[in-house]
Amino acid sequence: MTDAAAQVRADLDRLLPVLDAELTAPFRTGEAPRLGEAIRYSLEAGGKRVRPVLCLLASEAVGGTVAQALPGALALEYVHTYSLIHDDLPAMDDDDLRRGRPTNHKVFGEGHAILAGDALLTEAFGVLASAALDPVRRADALALLAEGAGWRGMAGGQALDLEGEKHTTPPDLEQLRLIHRLKTGALLRASLEIGAVLGGATPAERSALRAYGAAIGLAFQIQDDILDATATEAELGKRAGKDAGRGKITYPSLLGLDGARKALHEATENALCQLASLPIRSSLAAWARYLAQRAS
Amino acid sequence: MTDAAAQVRADLDRLLPVLDAELTAPFRTGEAPRLGEAIRYSLEAGGKRVRPVLCLLASEAVGGTVAQALPGALALEYVHTYSLIHDDLPAMDDDDLRRGRPTNHKVFGEGHAILAGDALLTEAFGVLASAALDPVRRADALALLAEGAGWRGMAGGQALDLEGEKHTTPPDLEQLRLIHRLKTGALLRASLEIGAVLGGATPAERSALRAYGAAIGLAFQIQDDILDATATEAELGKRAGKDAGRGKITYPSLLGLDGARKALHEATENALCQLASLPIRSSLAAWARYLAQRAS
Repeated sequence: MTDAAAQVRADLDRLLPVLDAELTAPFRTGEAPRLGEAIRYSLEAGGKRVRPVLCLLASEAVGGTVAQALPGALALEYVHTYSLIHDDLPAMDDDDLRRGRPTNHKVFGEGHAILAGDALLTEAFGVLASAALDPVRRADALALLAEGAGWRGMAGGQALDLEGEKHTTPPDLEQLRLIHRLKTGALLRASLEIGAVLGGATPAERSALRAYGAAIGLAFQIQDDILDATATEAELGKRAGKDAGRGKITYPSLLGLDGARKALHEATENALCQLASLPIRSSLAAWARYLAQRAS
Repeated sequence: MTDAAAQVRADLDRLLPVLDAELTAPFRTGEAPRLGEAIRYSLEAGGKRVRPVLCLLASEAVGGTVAQALPGALALEYVHTYSLIHDDLPAMDDDDLRRGRPTNHKVFGEGHAILAGDALLTEAFGVLASAALDPVRRADALALLAEGAGWRGMAGGQALDLEGEKHTTPPDLEQLRLIHRLKTGALLRASLEIGAVLGGATPAERSALRAYGAAIGLAFQIQDDILDATATEAELGKRAGKDAGRGKITYPSLLGLDGARKALHEATENALCQLASLPIRSSLAAWARYLAQRAS
C-alpha cells in the first residue's frame, strides 16, 4: 500500500462510522415506508463516500471540526446518491447494475426511483437548513450546494452529456471539459468549499479549497474514463467499457490512453499546489494522489 | 363575479406581475441552454400560482411585505412546477397534456424532463438560500420548504398515491386523507407558513396560518376530485375523469358527490375560523371561498 493509500484508509476508518451513524437516520420511520426503503437501499449500497469525506477533511484543513461540517457532508452524500438513482433510469444512462447490486428502479420501479431521488435531493437541503450551525455559514453552504447541484452545475452537466449522445459530429476537448466541469466537477468543488465554509475558512483558504476541488474533480473524471476503458466489470462493480461501447466521448478516446494519463498527472499536481497555504494538508494531499491511483 | 372572486382577481392583478418578472430569471442564460428551455417551458405554462400568491398574502396578513416573502414565493412555485413535471412522467401519472399544452417530457424527452424537475427543485432552495433576508427567518423557511416537499410531505404522498393504484382492496377515508395531507396539503401548508415566517409572524400567527393552510389544502383536493368527476376536458385544460377512470380513489367515489361537497364546505369554514386572530384577513378569507367555488 502506498503512503497516500494508507492515509486515505486511516481517514476512512475514522470518518465513515461517523457518517454511517447519521446517513439513514432521517429515512427510518415515516408515513411512506416503501419510499423510505427505496431511499435507504441506495444510501446503504456503500460507495466510496468521497464527497462527504472530502467535506469533513476540508473543515479540518482550515482548523474546523468534523461535527461542524457533518450536516454538509450528509447533504452532499444525499445529492450524490440522488444523482446516481436518476442517472441510472432508463431515460438516462439505463443501467441495471450499480456497485454490484441491481439499480434502484430495478428493485422498486421507476416511479419510486424518481421519487427516492427527489426526496434525497430535498432532504439534502433539509438537513443543512435545520442544523444547529452559525446561520450565515449555513446559508452560504446551502447556496453552494444549490449552485453545485443545479442547472449551472451537476444537473446542467447531465443534460449536456445526454445531448452529446445524440450528436453525430464528434465533440472536442473543450466541450468534454465543460460537461465534466458541470457534471462531476461542480459537486466535488462544492464539497470542498462547503467544508471550508462550515469549518470557518478565511476567504483565501476557501478559494484555495475551491480550486483544489476543481482540480481533483477533473482528475477523478479522467481516471474514471481510463478505468472504463481498461478495467474489468468485476473490478468496477458495474459494466466496463459502457461509455466507449455506446460511442460516448471520453478522455482516452480524445487524447489516447497516454495523453489521458498525462492530463491526469497534471490535474493532480495542480490540486497539490493549491494546498500550500492551508494549516493542515496531509490528508487532502493523500486524497489527491489516491484518486489518481485508484483501481475502481 | 362573487365578492371573493373579485378580491382574488385584484390580488392576482397586483401580485402576478411581481412573480412573473422574477420567475424565469435564473434560467435565462447558462451553459445548458436546452435544459434552461425545458425549465422555462413549464414555468411559463401559466397556472394559477396559488402557492406563491398565498405565500405573499400570508406575509401581508401578519404585517410583512411582498418583497420580504418573494424568494419564498418563487421557491414554492419552483417546487410545485417540478412536481408537475415529474408527476406527468410515464412512470408516474403518464399524462400527455398539462394546462392545455403537451407535457414537458412530450416536448423535451423524458431525460430532460427528469432533469428539469431536478434543477427546479434545486433552484427552489438556491433562491431562498441566496436571498438577502434575515438569516434565521431564511433558515426557518428553508427547513419548512424541505419538510413540505420531501418524503414526509409531497414526495411521500406521491409515493403512497402511486402504491394505491396497484392495490386490489379499496382504500378507506383515513388513507385517502393521509395521501392528500402529504401530496397536496404539505406544500400548501408550507406556503402559508413560509410567508408567515418571512413576514415576521408571531408564533400564534404562524400556527394559525399553518392550520389555515392545512384546511384549504384539504378543500383544494376535494374540489379537484369533484371537478375531475364533473367538469369537461375543455374546462380543465387536462384530461377529465382520469382519476375515476383508472379506479383511483377520490372523495366523490368514497363519499358520493353530495358527501364530498359537504366535506368541502366544512374544510372551507375551518379555514375561515383560523383567520380570526390575524391583523389583515380579507384576502385570505376570499381565497378560501374562491378555491371552494372554482370551476377549473
